Amino acid sequence: MRKKLKSEMGWSTADRIVVRGRDLAGELIGKVSLGDFAFLELKGRLPTKQESIVFNAITVTLVEHGMTPSVIAARLTYFGAPESLQGAVAAGLLGMGDRFGGSAEDAARMLQEALDGPPLPRQREQSISPHPARRSARRVGERVEKEDLKALASQIVSDHKARKQPVAGLGHPVHKPVDPRTVRLFEVASENGLSGRYVKLMQLVGNEATQVFGRDLPVNATGAIGAIASELGIPWRVCRGLAVMARAIGLVAHLQEEMEEPLAAEIWSRIEDESSSHLRPSSD
Amino acid sequence: MRKKLKSEMGWSTADRIVVRGRDLAGELIGKVSLGDFAFLELKGRLPTKQESIVFNAITVTLVEHGMTPSVIAARLTYFGAPESLQGAVAAGLLGMGDRFGGSAEDAARMLQEALDGPPLPRQREQSISPHPARRSARRVGERVEKEDLKALASQIVSDHKARKQPVAGLGHPVHKPVDPRTVRLFEVASENGLSGRYVKLMQLVGNEATQVFGRDLPVNATGAIGAIASELGIPWRVCRGLAVMARAIGLVAHLQEEMEEPLAAEIWSRIEDESSSHLRPSSD
Amino acid sequence: MRKKLKSEMGWSTADRIVVRGRDLAGELIGKVSLGDFAFLELKGRLPTKQESIVFNAITVTLVEHGMTPSVIAARLTYFGAPESLQGAVAAGLLGMGDRFGGSAEDAARMLQEALDGPPLPRQREQSISPHPARRSARRVGERVEKEDLKALASQIVSDHKARKQPVAGLGHPVHKPVDPRTVRLFEVASENGLSGRYVKLMQLVGNEATQVFGRDLPVNATGAIGAIASELGIPWRVCRGLAVMARAIGLVAHLQEEMEEPLAAEIWSRIEDESSSHLRPSSD
Amino acid sequence: MRKKLKSEMGWSTADRIVVRGRDLAGELIGKVSLGDFAFLELKGRLPTKQESIVFNAITVTLVEHGMTPSVIAARLTYFGAPESLQGAVAAGLLGMGDRFGGSAEDAARMLQEALDGPPLPRQREQSISPHPARRSARRVGERVEKEDLKALASQIVSDHKARKQPVAGLGHPVHKPVDPRTVRLFEVASENGLSGRYVKLMQLVGNEATQVFGRDLPVNATGAIGAIASELGIPWRVCRGLAVMARAIGLVAHLQEEMEEPLAAEIWSRIEDESSSHLRPSSD
Repeated sequence: MRKKLKSEMGWSTADRIVVRGRDLAGELIGKVSLGDFAFLELKGRLPTKQESIVFNAITVTLVEHGMTPSVIAARLTYFGAPESLQGAVAAGLLGMGDRFGGSAEDAARMLQEALDGPPLPRQREQSISPHPARRSARRVGERVEKEDLKALASQIVSDHKARKQPVAGLGHPVHKPVDPRTVRLFEVASENGLSGRYVKLMQLVGNEATQVFGRDLPVNATGAIGAIASELGIPWRVCRGLAVMARAIGLVAHLQEEMEEPLAAEIWSRIEDESSSHLRPSSD
Repeated sequence: MRKKLKSEMGWSTADRIVVRGRDLAGELIGKVSLGDFAFLELKGRLPTKQESIVFNAITVTLVEHGMTPSVIAARLTYFGAPESLQGAVAAGLLGMGDRFGGSAEDAARMLQEALDGPPLPRQREQSISPHPARRSARRVGERVEKEDLKALASQIVSDHKARKQPVAGLGHPVHKPVDPRTVRLFEVASENGLSGRYVKLMQLVGNEATQVFGRDLPVNATGAIGAIASELGIPWRVCRGLAVMARAIGLVAHLQEEMEEPLAAEIWSRIEDESSSHLRPSSD
Repeated sequence: MRKKLKSEMGWSTADRIVVRGRDLAGELIGKVSLGDFAFLELKGRLPTKQESIVFNAITVTLVEHGMTPSVIAARLTYFGAPESLQGAVAAGLLGMGDRFGGSAEDAARMLQEALDGPPLPRQREQSISPHPARRSARRVGERVEKEDLKALASQIVSDHKARKQPVAGLGHPVHKPVDPRTVRLFEVASENGLSGRYVKLMQLVGNEATQVFGRDLPVNATGAIGAIASELGIPWRVCRGLAVMARAIGLVAHLQEEMEEPLAAEIWSRIEDESSSHLRPSSD
Repeated sequence: MRKKLKSEMGWSTADRIVVRGRDLAGELIGKVSLGDFAFLELKGRLPTKQESIVFNAITVTLVEHGMTPSVIAARLTYFGAPESLQGAVAAGLLGMGDRFGGSAEDAARMLQEALDGPPLPRQREQSISPHPARRSARRVGERVEKEDLKALASQIVSDHKARKQPVAGLGHPVHKPVDPRTVRLFEVASENGLSGRYVKLMQLVGNEATQVFGRDLPVNATGAIGAIASELGIPWRVCRGLAVMARAIGLVAHLQEEMEEPLAAEIWSRIEDESSSHLRPSSD
């Protein structure tokens, strides 16, 4: 007996295309922005005005980070395969893994598991979002209401310290003592009524870690994004996807620049020469 | 002597991040939507209100097309590599090639080469966008002013017919006799003052082809997108990138659904069983 | 002060190409097989006759597994981007993650960490292969000599049981009660003098797990490959790479078949129809 | 009515795995090398001794080319996504496009279309390999017998000159006046009875082009590989795949080196600093 294949994303007939229950031509094109459409895709409904501002704010933050390893990889790939722009973007996205895309995911996971609890055993297989009933139960009663977020933050930091693990979403090699994006993102969330327990907990974790580890560990941009995405009800497993979708935009723009002012051949030539110079005959 | 590496996309210091000349935290986060940020990335400036509506309209159209080959590939990839959401999105994007992502590119190329001329020999190497001076010269004088777009459309269609090549951007296996997205996209472009010569030429090509080939060949969504992207001054080589960046959003949303309601194992099992059934021992 | 870029893999001048210290045209082409060349790439030296047979045996086992999710993804990708065979292969490889390619890696890691010890803290950053001196010390003295592999196997299985984790490299949904590849791989290793402590430990772990978990858990093909790769001194982090390089061959062959007898359009059409049938108007 | 899904590549039951009609455990593991297994995958039969030497020779040639753009992209990708070795290999393969992997394909296409004729119109849709009957007819009679390969070579070169297109498979920026790999590959092919009309035609095209274009244009390695692959009956569309499968091996080996001696962070840092130095405040 076969399982029925089912998707709720969209369908079409000769004269209609429907996305998430809405008529593409009649209700969406020309009326909804790309960021709001992304929210619709992920949540199954359009955002409120406040949600729109906040969701666009976090995705905008993830688009462009200059000449990152991911961008350089995309440019080098385009050099070898100019017939396949999609391949160069894909190569760039493949670098959005644990080190880059993963940090917002890790922060969101830490917060969601702390405030919503780990999924129940059966859920672990079945669902990525905490069971709604349980979630509200949790919020109202059991843990979050009666605990105090500060105690939760202490526990998170001491757990990480005991495991000798860095806390996700804290610190930045360049943007210190504060990450200007974090300040602004938390401001935008707050102005739009989306600065709740997840944001508060993230901030408390940052304060606590700064004390416990004895050095500046402010919340960085990915920590802020993980917290705010949690406020928007985005499951932590999808948070890496926010970075991926945003970065796809940045990669296309870098490839456009590479078409006009190519850097790949120069990068290749320098690296190849230097990295084999100790092997080549000296007269060469 | 080495070539200097240079990129205009962005830079940062400890307390500032600058994208395309604008302060990310101060000017962009919370103020600019994802679609407008994409426009900024590609064009180096923010869109006008009209450009924003039109640019968002064309990218929104490209996000979600249901259970396409690209989406199925992404879901199957996630099944094998759940640690790497970015890999599943990349696998999905790799299918946005000549057959899918390429059609808007082909339409834009046809229109841009007809109205702006093929790049001059030196340009071919150096630049993806037509030389501005020449472009305006063309527009005002030489060809487009005095020609009539109808003659150009005739020539394009007869050239394609002679080469036995289908005309890019026309016809659709499902959406006929008209593609509802095209109607809406052209309406949005027109309402916002962005329905110029490229759009007109695309429409005339559709009419002409319908007559010459003797069957309904209306402008499809990718034809409309290719034409409108040309109105926005987006070089044809980048048009495939519009599909790629938009589809990255749709792929993340499909993967979220796959996490909650997995289809990959069922798809695998059916296809494997059927495709090897003629080889297996019959008692099996 | 910049770090010098250095690679030992190869270099070339106008009249010479040198790979891993050997002249490509003079010493390798026409003399060394593809599998032995892969060994040279990974180990920096050519294999002995015995090592060649065993290394080729494990890589051969990984090439072709029929219509897997990875193969289906590659075929669907080729359908959308026929201009880019490399993109279709890449899409297929992206599915060789934790679930498939990762299993040989996990088995090898389990065995290498048990017999060679976890890397010392500084090594963790610097090197993927255990420190040679320490490794031999371990082998001769400390742990492995005096311990008994059976005790180590017991400990591994009880650790996994306590953590409610499946043991890597054991059991198979289809190939039971024994995996015919395992039998053959261990036979080939043994005939060629490469069945040492890693293989023995893997086998003992299989026996122990079968008893402790109370069901058949024989060593599967990836368990055998992880053990034999360890005998060949291949670091566990690279074992997933063996699956990746082998599968690239299988994917090219499947794409050749797809070119001659395409399945992608049929797969797409079936899945799309079924997965949206509950959403479409019933008259459709 | 649905099309039946069918693949001839392999199948398995509880106690058997069959690849291309042969029992994996009983007939292949421990008996067949990786290169010969690749031949089996592509051709459906094992190679003769001569075919084995020649097929292994061409694939070996494609494995390692030092620090190419593709390798650098793979290393940068691994830096960002160390959890996904398969993603880093995929990123590297994505650069094996028209510029690199495509050159052997282009040479094989040129030779196969010249000697076997362009596919008949219906074939163009249906099959990638020339119709066998027609192919032998061609060879015995029509064109190749009565023509002289020299005339064919002249025509090819003058066609390319007229179209201002470079001839595939000729010349090399570094390996001049001769490519040492070509000399060796043709020698190996000849020693093994696989130097027929395709090789001869490729050599004649090289001579002719050198005269007509007035500069050294010897057959390069990809020209030799395209010709020899044609001798082995490999369709030109698959030739890019030979480069892809071989390069997957080289990429895994480079990633192993990157794990032990990482270069990615240094490459990133240099490129980022230099490419934004003209934008940063000078005090920075």
